[in-house]
Amino acid sequence: MTVNPSHQPEESTATRAAARLGPALAVLTDLLGATGVRTEPPVLDRYARSSGSRTSRPAAVLYPASTPQVQDIVRTAARFRLTLYPVSRGCNWGYGDAAPFQSAELIVDLRRMDQIHEFNHELGYVTLGPGVSQGQLHHHLLQHAPDLWMDCSAAGPDASIVGNIMERGFGHTRYCDHVRTTAGLEVVLPDGRLLHTGFGHFPGSRTTHVFPYGIGPQLDSLFMQSNLGIVTRATVWLMPRPDAFDAVVVSCREDQLEAMVDALGRLRRAALLNTTVHLGNDLRVISGRMRYPFHRAAGQVPLPPELRAQIREEFDIDHWNASAAIYGAASTVHATRRAIADALRPFRVNWFNQSRLDLGRRVTRLLHRTAWARRTSTRIDAAQTALDLLMGKPTDAPLTGAAWRVRGEIPEPVTDPLDAHAGLMWIAPVVPLTGSAAREIVTLLEPIFNRFGFDFLVTFTLINERAMIAVTNLAFDRRDEAETARADLCYHEALNACLRAGFPPYRVGPEGTADITRHRSSFWDIVDELKTCLDPLSTLSRGRYARPT
Amino acid sequence: MTVNPSHQPEESTATRAAARLGPALAVLTDLLGATGVRTEPPVLDRYARSSGSRTSRPAAVLYPASTPQVQDIVRTAARFRLTLYPVSRGCNWGYGDAAPFQSAELIVDLRRMDQIHEFNHELGYVTLGPGVSQGQLHHHLLQHAPDLWMDCSAAGPDASIVGNIMERGFGHTRYCDHVRTTAGLEVVLPDGRLLHTGFGHFPGSRTTHVFPYGIGPQLDSLFMQSNLGIVTRATVWLMPRPDAFDAVVVSCREDQLEAMVDALGRLRRAALLNTTVHLGNDLRVISGRMRYPFHRAAGQVPLPPELRAQIREEFDIDHWNASAAIYGAASTVHATRRAIADALRPFRVNWFNQSRLDLGRRVTRLLHRTAWARRTSTRIDAAQTALDLLMGKPTDAPLTGAAWRVRGEIPEPVTDPLDAHAGLMWIAPVVPLTGSAAREIVTLLEPIFNRFGFDFLVTFTLINERAMIAVTNLAFDRRDEAETARADLCYHEALNACLRAGFPPYRVGPEGTADITRHRSSFWDIVDELKTCLDPLSTLSRGRYARPT
Repeated sequence: MTVNPSHQPEESTATRAAARLGPALAVLTDLLGATGVRTEPPVLDRYARSSGSRTSRPAAVLYPASTPQVQDIVRTAARFRLTLYPVSRGCNWGYGDAAPFQSAELIVDLRRMDQIHEFNHELGYVTLGPGVSQGQLHHHLLQHAPDLWMDCSAAGPDASIVGNIMERGFGHTRYCDHVRTTAGLEVVLPDGRLLHTGFGHFPGSRTTHVFPYGIGPQLDSLFMQSNLGIVTRATVWLMPRPDAFDAVVVSCREDQLEAMVDALGRLRRAALLNTTVHLGNDLRVISGRMRYPFHRAAGQVPLPPELRAQIREEFDIDHWNASAAIYGAASTVHATRRAIADALRPFRVNWFNQSRLDLGRRVTRLLHRTAWARRTSTRIDAAQTALDLLMGKPTDAPLTGAAWRVRGEIPEPVTDPLDAHAGLMWIAPVVPLTGSAAREIVTLLEPIFNRFGFDFLVTFTLINERAMIAVTNLAFDRRDEAETARADLCYHEALNACLRAGFPPYRVGPEGTADITRHRSSFWDIVDELKTCLDPLSTLSRGRYARPT
Repeated sequence: MTVNPSHQPEESTATRAAARLGPALAVLTDLLGATGVRTEPPVLDRYARSSGSRTSRPAAVLYPASTPQVQDIVRTAARFRLTLYPVSRGCNWGYGDAAPFQSAELIVDLRRMDQIHEFNHELGYVTLGPGVSQGQLHHHLLQHAPDLWMDCSAAGPDASIVGNIMERGFGHTRYCDHVRTTAGLEVVLPDGRLLHTGFGHFPGSRTTHVFPYGIGPQLDSLFMQSNLGIVTRATVWLMPRPDAFDAVVVSCREDQLEAMVDALGRLRRAALLNTTVHLGNDLRVISGRMRYPFHRAAGQVPLPPELRAQIREEFDIDHWNASAAIYGAASTVHATRRAIADALRPFRVNWFNQSRLDLGRRVTRLLHRTAWARRTSTRIDAAQTALDLLMGKPTDAPLTGAAWRVRGEIPEPVTDPLDAHAGLMWIAPVVPLTGSAAREIVTLLEPIFNRFGFDFLVTFTLINERAMIAVTNLAFDRRDEAETARADLCYHEALNACLRAGFPPYRVGPEGTADITRHRSSFWDIVDELKTCLDPLSTLSRGRYARPT
């Protein structure tokens, strides 16, 4: 099913826009070259796909290769009164992918702007174009600076680093919050002007990349989760590879959730745990290791409780499973481990690191014919995925979970959820970092998911010392129109339940924008006014994190 | 000497404003009551004082007691076309104090808005009016939650907490950066509308105080170092008192500065040191313990090198002296101490904590007649000041340094630099966290300070893992007109030397605004455009972190 965006231009407006499109594309082809302007149906079809409940089809896709070309594009769009939707690499899986929040004539895909402009080994930072992918930077570091680690999101090697920052995403290491480890944006404004934030606009500044605020009002945050400019460059901080490192999985029974979250929160606030913690329920862990067992469930959805318990046992996982890590010197890691183990005594605590996993692999290889070895091997693979993320290595493995409810054959491993026909919409409310708030989210949302026939997959990410993001994935089969329609209903019901409970989300896709902007609020009035100030023609990303226009 | 602001309104404009003032004050007196509108000369005289090189005298000072009264004030000012300069408590010492950046008719002093609106013990946060002082919150915590620590700046117990956040100030604990430990602003806009940032505008939101970003563009940073609104409420995060705590002073010779800064930087990036570090030169430390020895220097300024060396020896301090702390569990503090001591082996490292200082005090009391005891006692007092700040206790002691060059009798201890006739202007360039950059600042600025007859007092604050703020205080006697004029020249020469070297400042007072906005830059264009959008009449804080109007 394709739900049309609610605010389609009137036919006459659309017709007029179509008439301007030809001359505009001719100008753009002059500026970008033939390979920079694509209108072939297979290309447009690719960009019309979405893992969400709605899609729209662009009239063309533009591929600028440089900041001046982006400036040319916005000026041309303004001149011909066309609308643009810029994406860094279009991998915003489950939050609209590359799809515009409202229909836009031209998608601007920045993937060609994949230069690594600056690299500082001593201080640990790198300045990137929006086209630089997680995998690209990771390989660059392996080659040129293996003693530096990046922080990466679970969106896989192909996803843009800058794009994730602009959505205020997060990763799995000590750095975690991508907003707090970036500085010095270069932004193309809707009128084609170039803005350098922080100290970047001072001639000869030598601190643009190391101090994000600059002097005077800091403007960076205006360009995150907004539609006010196109970010064409950003600095990202890298951490030194620690001398010592240990990862941990802490797990507990359903009735221990509150106690475990409270204990983890206290450890975070005491800075004994100074990385983020990702706490997933059994279904979330299971969905990373297999697809929905339609056969064993006799076609029933959601997963029946007995089968759920059985699979939990097969994988030897608990109801709730948290991963985290400690970074430091050998002596401090050892001491911190002891302090954490003390605080988490009531729960199951498993420490691991690369050498332990390697050892485990050698043992299971020796005993490969046994059922024990097969089970252990699956566990080692899962632990490796967690470990990779805790060490800043991008991995495709988490994308597997997106295809949880897809039926039949799909390309595996999943590197692009759209190729796997994955239906995926995240509902990601922020909640206080307390056990009771975690329980409240489960009690609130699991019944809604189940009522619509969906499994309640959830991870609580301890994003700071006081808040968690409850990332729930509504997973469905995107080819199934009826299921997609049910997913759409479930999405809105769950999102609005969160809003009513006082838990707005940290991020939404196009499907959720109307829900989060519906209430009367001077905040959204001011966002509108800033839009009028900076983008009077509303050239960029209409409706993205803003009221529908 | 009083340098007039460069952009005084033309006489006729000023006359017209004066004519509107009477009726406006009558309306304001109706709204705020007689005690809320002060025009007596002694009050105006107080607000006309500044530790900087320029002053301006308001026509009245307003004291709103609530957010609705602030809304009334901005609406009334707009109606009568008068200009306002809001201050939280007016303790912006060395950055203009309570003085407007350009002349403003009415100062709005928010000190009566000193309510502690919300307090969450479990998660550790407090929501404050702008009138809440550091001392007030500290006493509140001692009474109601001694297991929570605040992070405070060195501006003393009387300074506003919210005011310091809005200037992007910093403290001395693990929290340090006040921008990063705040959330949920309430802002009165220039047209009287009320804005709640982050999740604060969502009805019934329960995460406003724990997750700063909200959803959509984050607007908080528009109101820091700017003139776009009046912040009337902010949430501040508090840290749990650690189970274990150790403070350290690391010091070194002049020729070891580079090596020590590099070592400290590596420790910061490895997160073995996860607090800020404040690294002061000998003069900065000395200025905290005594006033300028005019007699011993035979009236000569700056301090002659031999005398400087002699005093260094008397106080048993080094050329460079850094303080920091470790917070954690007993075992982790012990291990971290060892790792830090290893990394800092080439330097003098002294660990201390409250029980060691208490012990030292008992010993010196026993031996109080000896010269050793007197010297040690002074050292213990200095260590106590450092320790207090590392434990989040506001202290007046650092204000003593502001009076370094004041001659004759002054009220002691210094609790208000203006009462002590302190001349004080900070020049605070941001530099990369490298030893060579630290050296470059010293080589660049010390000769300039000395050429104008001033002592080069400097602290490097390791504000994050990659940058330092070099806080230099230009200290002079504010009653001495010739010296104030020399300070003004020195200030501009030093600030512009920093700008030319690629080191813009993190913050300026009114004296520095023209210097930082002079270059061509779309950044300042956009700041102007945002001002026109949100404050078309330019009611608020003209020229504050903006181009002169």
